[in-house]
Amino acid sequence: MGQQIKPRLAKGTRDFSPADMNLRNYIFKTITGHFDRFGFEQIETPAIENLETLTGKYGDEGDQLIFKILNSGDYLSKADEDLLREKNSSALIPSISEKALKYDLTVPFARYVVLHRNEITFPFRRYQIQPVWRADRPQKGRYREFYQCDADVIGSNSLLLEVEFINLIHNVFKDLNISVKIKLNSRKILFGFCQAIGIENDFTSFTTILDKLDKKPWSELEGDFADAGFTADQIKSAKKLASVNGIELTEKSVARLSEEIPLTEIGEKGVEELKTIARYLGSSHAEVVELDLSLARGLNYYTGAIIEVKADKVDIGSVCGGGRYDDLTGIFGLPDTSGIGISFGIDRIYDILRSREESLQQTRPGKHVVFVNFGENEVKYSIDAVNSLRQAGVRSELYPDADKLKKQFKYADQKGASHVVTAGEAEIEKKEYRVKDLKTGEQWELSFDKMKNLLLKD
Amino acid sequence: MGQQIKPRLAKGTRDFSPADMNLRNYIFKTITGHFDRFGFEQIETPAIENLETLTGKYGDEGDQLIFKILNSGDYLSKADEDLLREKNSSALIPSISEKALKYDLTVPFARYVVLHRNEITFPFRRYQIQPVWRADRPQKGRYREFYQCDADVIGSNSLLLEVEFINLIHNVFKDLNISVKIKLNSRKILFGFCQAIGIENDFTSFTTILDKLDKKPWSELEGDFADAGFTADQIKSAKKLASVNGIELTEKSVARLSEEIPLTEIGEKGVEELKTIARYLGSSHAEVVELDLSLARGLNYYTGAIIEVKADKVDIGSVCGGGRYDDLTGIFGLPDTSGIGISFGIDRIYDILRSREESLQQTRPGKHVVFVNFGENEVKYSIDAVNSLRQAGVRSELYPDADKLKKQFKYADQKGASHVVTAGEAEIEKKEYRVKDLKTGEQWELSFDKMKNLLLKD
Repeated sequence: MGQQIKPRLAKGTRDFSPADMNLRNYIFKTITGHFDRFGFEQIETPAIENLETLTGKYGDEGDQLIFKILNSGDYLSKADEDLLREKNSSALIPSISEKALKYDLTVPFARYVVLHRNEITFPFRRYQIQPVWRADRPQKGRYREFYQCDADVIGSNSLLLEVEFINLIHNVFKDLNISVKIKLNSRKILFGFCQAIGIENDFTSFTTILDKLDKKPWSELEGDFADAGFTADQIKSAKKLASVNGIELTEKSVARLSEEIPLTEIGEKGVEELKTIARYLGSSHAEVVELDLSLARGLNYYTGAIIEVKADKVDIGSVCGGGRYDDLTGIFGLPDTSGIGISFGIDRIYDILRSREESLQQTRPGKHVVFVNFGENEVKYSIDAVNSLRQAGVRSELYPDADKLKKQFKYADQKGASHVVTAGEAEIEKKEYRVKDLKTGEQWELSFDKMKNLLLKD
Repeated sequence: MGQQIKPRLAKGTRDFSPADMNLRNYIFKTITGHFDRFGFEQIETPAIENLETLTGKYGDEGDQLIFKILNSGDYLSKADEDLLREKNSSALIPSISEKALKYDLTVPFARYVVLHRNEITFPFRRYQIQPVWRADRPQKGRYREFYQCDADVIGSNSLLLEVEFINLIHNVFKDLNISVKIKLNSRKILFGFCQAIGIENDFTSFTTILDKLDKKPWSELEGDFADAGFTADQIKSAKKLASVNGIELTEKSVARLSEEIPLTEIGEKGVEELKTIARYLGSSHAEVVELDLSLARGLNYYTGAIIEVKADKVDIGSVCGGGRYDDLTGIFGLPDTSGIGISFGIDRIYDILRSREESLQQTRPGKHVVFVNFGENEVKYSIDAVNSLRQAGVRSELYPDADKLKKQFKYADQKGASHVVTAGEAEIEKKEYRVKDLKTGEQWELSFDKMKNLLLKD
């Protein structure tokens, strides 16, 4: 195998060890359990997409951050010699790289929907939990390879779906025992406001600056707005808009916006939509769902309601977000297909739960028995018991070597086993097993059936 | 979003649609259920590894098939100008690519074990189910991105582990309802045989040719052996060796090898090991486990028992394979660490099950209710029922739009729903729901509680 190599992870990547996986699987299982109950179906798209499928969808900065895959074989054969001489890295990419790692789940999902449009039952409710890759500078809590967890319904513009997603989010975080606020706004209201104060041509720049409000104080944003060319009056209006937050979402609180905020027709349409959503929601989750006009969401494909979820008492940014879009699939040839989607921030949810002792307890598997190995004569007796316990569904192991007792007990302890079973000559003669509860220290000598019953008990 | 792009998959990659995912998740769940009961713990390693971690581990051909990732930013800045002028693709790789996609789960696992040696409880039982990537020429049933499903125990040379893996394999395929033969051989027997007939220096070439026996008839292999420089006598001996297959694995049948096959000391050690395994196994799975000296396994890191599993009555190659190795982690600085591992052929198992109607039935989710949408007045009545059913664990949907009844029933049918619920003015007045069983056509008018009981019944 050649010379020795130092074992290292690639920059910005992680290994997930067994304890990490237990917690991650618990989170995935909880979330997908709710997806299932809401009628969402799972799909997976490949890690590798054609570069042309991804390029141009995430802005210039995004294009830079897409990981490109070198063509295999003699990848330089078609490369332009002048460009090589100039060392023109970016102009050479198309001739040496056809494929790339996916940057998010959304664009490949749009590609999937168009490619499979004839097999799909619309409105299509799908979810997807897969890794994505970004050539970002790695830093604490930001990785180059990380999981996204998305749910979308595509092919209907019914506002009932906004309500469905709010219910879904509420159920998921309740089940995860994370207390949250679900913030709601409408891109139509934001756009109608910008039209009304005469900055509709700078809408993207407006929302990009507003979106920073959770990272910067308003005073700093004022400078950013001024730098972007907004007038003092416009900034004053924006401040009033942004001050509408933390308000209970009711038909009444939404209706009041038409009086308080300058809005054009499209803005009023946004108000009507939020009113309908509030009416459908009624009093459910009243303490959790908030109207927040300062919410902008960075992504420009949103065209209707936008949603963002913040965990209470934890300064960790948003743990879930999403919104309504009108034309996700147009670029691949299926225009005018409205949809709505959300994305759960798996890594942040993981960080919140990891810091809690009780969630780690919860995710540990139940009963787990390690049988001590006393050598070949005793092993045969134990193998049969181990296999029968497994048949009954109990996690069971026979320690593979006849090592010192102390070492075998240490193994059981470190693996988090709940019980250790010893069966030496004396026990074999009596057709029994000595079972020790590692938590309480209690011990019993039991027949196989009694041992099985003990281990199957909750 | 720029100009319109045709939706295409990258060559050799696949989308998994909901029906695919149901079957795949059923397979994963079945296998991991057994991993859990055998005390294996899950880990994940990143898709991206440093190129130096992978290079040189899979032979020259393998190195070619590793997908390399282009460095981000100005990747040509450090490239040698002479090499660029020569268009020397292979010599330039180290200067423009530091990272690669993992080629299998084994080498990153070895890297993981050495990197985390101080946190791991040895003997370490781990499993891993993740995609890997190979720049192979795509063809029917062979993909550039595919899943591997591996289980290993590292840090013990106990032969009990060989027995454990045979039991594990047996339980998994029994549960999947796939009838198989588990073939067993020992690389020590093969090596002892080669020593005895004087070809130990050509051991790799010998096993590589022998490994082709399931793809070519013996007559063709004879030509290959001759081309590789083996004498007629040696080929005759090899034929006798390879004829020992399809034999029930017992202490007796293994002991007979010492008389029938020329073996040196290391070969006799292999015989002793298989005898011990046969003794531990006793009569369990006697009809399934076979001795097969024609089994070679292509991979050169195996040093002890080797295992291969063939499905009966399906000409689909091996569905699982593995073996004992003595020095997987040496290259990363942890020498002399014996282990044993197996890999399940997920794609082949998937192909076998997909062709069976009953397995598709089995993997379909249970009760699934679609509520018809009659417009805003009726919707509120249905939303509450839908949410309460979900709370009770029933997969439930409210169709988002007040479309024609026919369209809504078609949606329910295409999504495989078991029941459709209609609640119009008449039902609302009576506080009831009209429930239709889509399979039998039966209909009932029920209160919410009675409907819930009906849907929770098996």
